Amino acid sequence: MPKPSNKNEFIAAGMRIMFRKGYHATGIRDVVAEGGVPQGSFTNHFGSKEAFAQEVLDHYFMQTQAIVEEALGDHSLSPRGRLLRYLDIITDRLAADGYLRGCLIGDFSIEVSQVSEPLRERLVAIYREWLRPFEECIAEGQKAGEIEDRFSPQDLADFLLTSWEGAILRMKVEQSEEPLERFKKIAFTRIFAKGS
Amino acid sequence: MPKPSNKNEFIAAGMRIMFRKGYHATGIRDVVAEGGVPQGSFTNHFGSKEAFAQEVLDHYFMQTQAIVEEALGDHSLSPRGRLLRYLDIITDRLAADGYLRGCLIGDFSIEVSQVSEPLRERLVAIYREWLRPFEECIAEGQKAGEIEDRFSPQDLADFLLTSWEGAILRMKVEQSEEPLERFKKIAFTRIFAKGS
Repeated sequence: MPKPSNKNEFIAAGMRIMFRKGYHATGIRDVVAEGGVPQGSFTNHFGSKEAFAQEVLDHYFMQTQAIVEEALGDHSLSPRGRLLRYLDIITDRLAADGYLRGCLIGDFSIEVSQVSEPLRERLVAIYREWLRPFEECIAEGQKAGEIEDRFSPQDLADFLLTSWEGAILRMKVEQSEEPLERFKKIAFTRIFAKGS
Repeated sequence: MPKPSNKNEFIAAGMRIMFRKGYHATGIRDVVAEGGVPQGSFTNHFGSKEAFAQEVLDHYFMQTQAIVEEALGDHSLSPRGRLLRYLDIITDRLAADGYLRGCLIGDFSIEVSQVSEPLRERLVAIYREWLRPFEECIAEGQKAGEIEDRFSPQDLADFLLTSWEGAILRMKVEQSEEPLERFKKIAFTRIFAKGS
């Protein structure tokens, strides 16, 4: 049985390279070189590049869920404050990478949806799971009168994470926090705010 | 001098392939095969894949600008109506491709910003030019009391096109118009609407 640590090294290496070069341009050879582990053990762990990418994506999503839990699970904040807290933590992480890395879920949404049906289906499932705690938090904020309630929590949660992906996409071009801060300012004044 | 038609065939072929596979995975060989033109003439026209991609991007942006002009230049509509018209025209075009193709500007924002400084700088310039007529239209809508005026036309225009890119990204995963319609519904009720 291959050492489990090897598998983790492959996944960490894959994530670093895919953040930089995307899915298509990442070769298994790059991952092996970056990970400093023998090529043979790649094949032992992963059946194909597509299967490998799915594990990288799942690992990234697991990290994302930890941030969701950190922010949306912080009941010292109001529901609206928790949503903002999530975006602020992500902003700090993007800043730490010099606004060069985006979000692997967004990157894959653009790059692989059209070419890999298994990865697209995995993305559909990931969005569903990612959205659920946001829907709950928004419903709570609506009940508390903190968030406008003309739209369903489902619609608003999807709007939030989807538009945020747009802000991250724009950040990659500008290489600055401006698109992120602009999004928070406008969305949290007009949408994730008291109704009128 | 090479025939100009060859150049156009390369660009059309490049656009079709880059829509499908992105920048990194598109080889010059693919473009030559797709375009049905001799390989030698590619080198005559374009110095490098990066230079070629820039021309493909410029050509795509030219097409985008024609849509901007069609929608934002239609003064039979109110400023707010013109903004919506733009998003509706794009929605129809995305539908015609079965929600498989996104926006090449968004695709490149995700995929090349980090790996090609010339292409990133071109994207910065494209966004600037793309935004200007939206800023003017929004300023007009604010003056007419049709669009809320707590934010500058610059901020609102950037928010509009950037969040719209997010909706297109999400559309690629869902392969349906739902994210596009959700965006229009929420943004045009809460932001591109009368202030309160």
